[in-house]
Amino acid sequence: MLQDKNTSKTDLSQLGEFGLIETLTKDIQIKNPSTLKGVGDDAAVLNFKSKNTLVSTDLLVEGIHFDLAYFPLKHLGYKSAIVNFSDIYAMNGTASQLLVGLAVSNRFPLEAIAEIYEGIKLACRLYDVDLVGGDTTSSRSGLILNPTVLGHVAQGKEVYRNGAQPNDLIVVTGDLGAAYMGLLVLQRENEVFKVNPQHQPDLSPYSYVVERQLKPEARKDVPVILEELKVQPTAMIDISDGLSSEVLHITKQSGVGAHIYAEKIPIDPQTVLTAEEFNISELTAALNGGEDYELLFTISQKDYEKIRYRKEFAVIGHITEEPGAYLITQDNQKVALKAQGWNALKNKS
Amino acid sequence: MLQDKNTSKTDLSQLGEFGLIETLTKDIQIKNPSTLKGVGDDAAVLNFKSKNTLVSTDLLVEGIHFDLAYFPLKHLGYKSAIVNFSDIYAMNGTASQLLVGLAVSNRFPLEAIAEIYEGIKLACRLYDVDLVGGDTTSSRSGLILNPTVLGHVAQGKEVYRNGAQPNDLIVVTGDLGAAYMGLLVLQRENEVFKVNPQHQPDLSPYSYVVERQLKPEARKDVPVILEELKVQPTAMIDISDGLSSEVLHITKQSGVGAHIYAEKIPIDPQTVLTAEEFNISELTAALNGGEDYELLFTISQKDYEKIRYRKEFAVIGHITEEPGAYLITQDNQKVALKAQGWNALKNKS
Repeated sequence: MLQDKNTSKTDLSQLGEFGLIETLTKDIQIKNPSTLKGVGDDAAVLNFKSKNTLVSTDLLVEGIHFDLAYFPLKHLGYKSAIVNFSDIYAMNGTASQLLVGLAVSNRFPLEAIAEIYEGIKLACRLYDVDLVGGDTTSSRSGLILNPTVLGHVAQGKEVYRNGAQPNDLIVVTGDLGAAYMGLLVLQRENEVFKVNPQHQPDLSPYSYVVERQLKPEARKDVPVILEELKVQPTAMIDISDGLSSEVLHITKQSGVGAHIYAEKIPIDPQTVLTAEEFNISELTAALNGGEDYELLFTISQKDYEKIRYRKEFAVIGHITEEPGAYLITQDNQKVALKAQGWNALKNKS
Repeated sequence: MLQDKNTSKTDLSQLGEFGLIETLTKDIQIKNPSTLKGVGDDAAVLNFKSKNTLVSTDLLVEGIHFDLAYFPLKHLGYKSAIVNFSDIYAMNGTASQLLVGLAVSNRFPLEAIAEIYEGIKLACRLYDVDLVGGDTTSSRSGLILNPTVLGHVAQGKEVYRNGAQPNDLIVVTGDLGAAYMGLLVLQRENEVFKVNPQHQPDLSPYSYVVERQLKPEARKDVPVILEELKVQPTAMIDISDGLSSEVLHITKQSGVGAHIYAEKIPIDPQTVLTAEEFNISELTAALNGGEDYELLFTISQKDYEKIRYRKEFAVIGHITEEPGAYLITQDNQKVALKAQGWNALKNKS
């Protein structure tokens, strides 16, 4: 994974706002032809020609979405970009520009902010996104990251949440529940560390689930594959709050129902083992854990042959005409899905 | 000014994230043809046709940019939108879409968040901007608002900070320094209130300066007037950190210098009176106070006749070939401008 190497400390108040911006943005290179002007003016200037513009924003708040006790700053920057890119892929689009709103305690030295930015810039490089603007300011207490992502999609190729039709197949990418198990592992190690700071955790049995939590990736490949396969999904959403919550968004907005088959939900063996260790069901992790940043989409049955042999995709159920979203268990019980997904508004403080 | 009327209290944790979004966004109406899809999916979908897209983001952080002791929530929402719109007008563009990142303490009831949104929605209505997305989450402590604005400008009509040429005239809109004096008045009344909560402040002698602080407006009219007058500025910036800071941005980025004449700087009589009362120079307020959200631009001398009788504009100086930005005082002293503008990274907590 990524490493935080820097140990020197430069006081932000010495540097000033403009000095900080210059330090953080001086090595930015613009790669996308749609970016006409990046950082350095009142606004960035872009041109998407005839394509549709996509724009989305997602907040990450210290103490709510992450804990700096176990979340390295560079990873945090990386993840804040990834979760935003994911929203563009969920529209079947290409992410191309990022702006970053960043509020930090003035107890943070320059080097800490630079680490966050290193993570953001790494994500931008790997996903071909231009960092074109933002705003950095101090905050009275916690760290808040609020990136905004822009992207584009050919007109008519955008995929909304509301287009699912009865008998459509429900497809997910990758595997689910790992990021949540990674979170539980990190929280447990952090509790042990508090009691015994000499403790050296061995995270190697949990490498996959921990990486899914600390360094998630977004499915940039999926819109490209769908284009190659000539598959236009009828509805799509990214899995940020857990499978249950996302299936309910699609069924509610499309005015349909869904059956999901428990045995079809893709779950990594390490997620299963870790869930056993924590004495929870791996299905709970997949349905309600969230932060997978995989994509959930629906396709017409006629497209089944096009996708069935693609390892990226798993068909997990189908859309029904009658409303209501249900999990069909292995012993054929029908359980209503609930949006128990992670709710950032609940009283956690 | 705006009024906060609501006194009932609904707990956010009862409502949940999706309930909150529904409550806040149900009455939103889309007005701009460039908005194809607003709130309710993974991303908003826009189309600016052949025009250039403009995008900018500005953070407002409690305890740094505002104090809720004297800043009503509805005004705060309004201002958070206005300061973002201002960045689009500073590019000579039209603001058309807004997304809002909002982190609030979960001690805030729904009604408090609804007040903030009322202010945002009012600003959107008055400025013909569509509210198309955002993210709302709880925060461990303070209130943070991070709107992102999008807009558009005909290709080639955008105005950067770096185009000022020697002998160009330097022009400002409106008047300067009032918002800063309004801030000082509000801070003083707040100190009095802390000592004596029965004290009923009479703000009527300060109505203009207080309104400039609590309910600033952005110069939506200026790009329209410039178009009518067939004036294409050579450089433009909005005045958020004070005149000095903005003149220095333009001269630095354009590789030129500037002379500003103290007697030409437009300052409202109430700003002058209030500054006298606080025993500071009104010039200091205009040069370093900030938050005016007026526009500063440079034009070729040949365009002088086109603008000279427009009451919206004041010519305050000219661009020089030799570097260095100077204030020329009434007794003909030459004083170097410094960016003493308001610095959100200084140690204020």
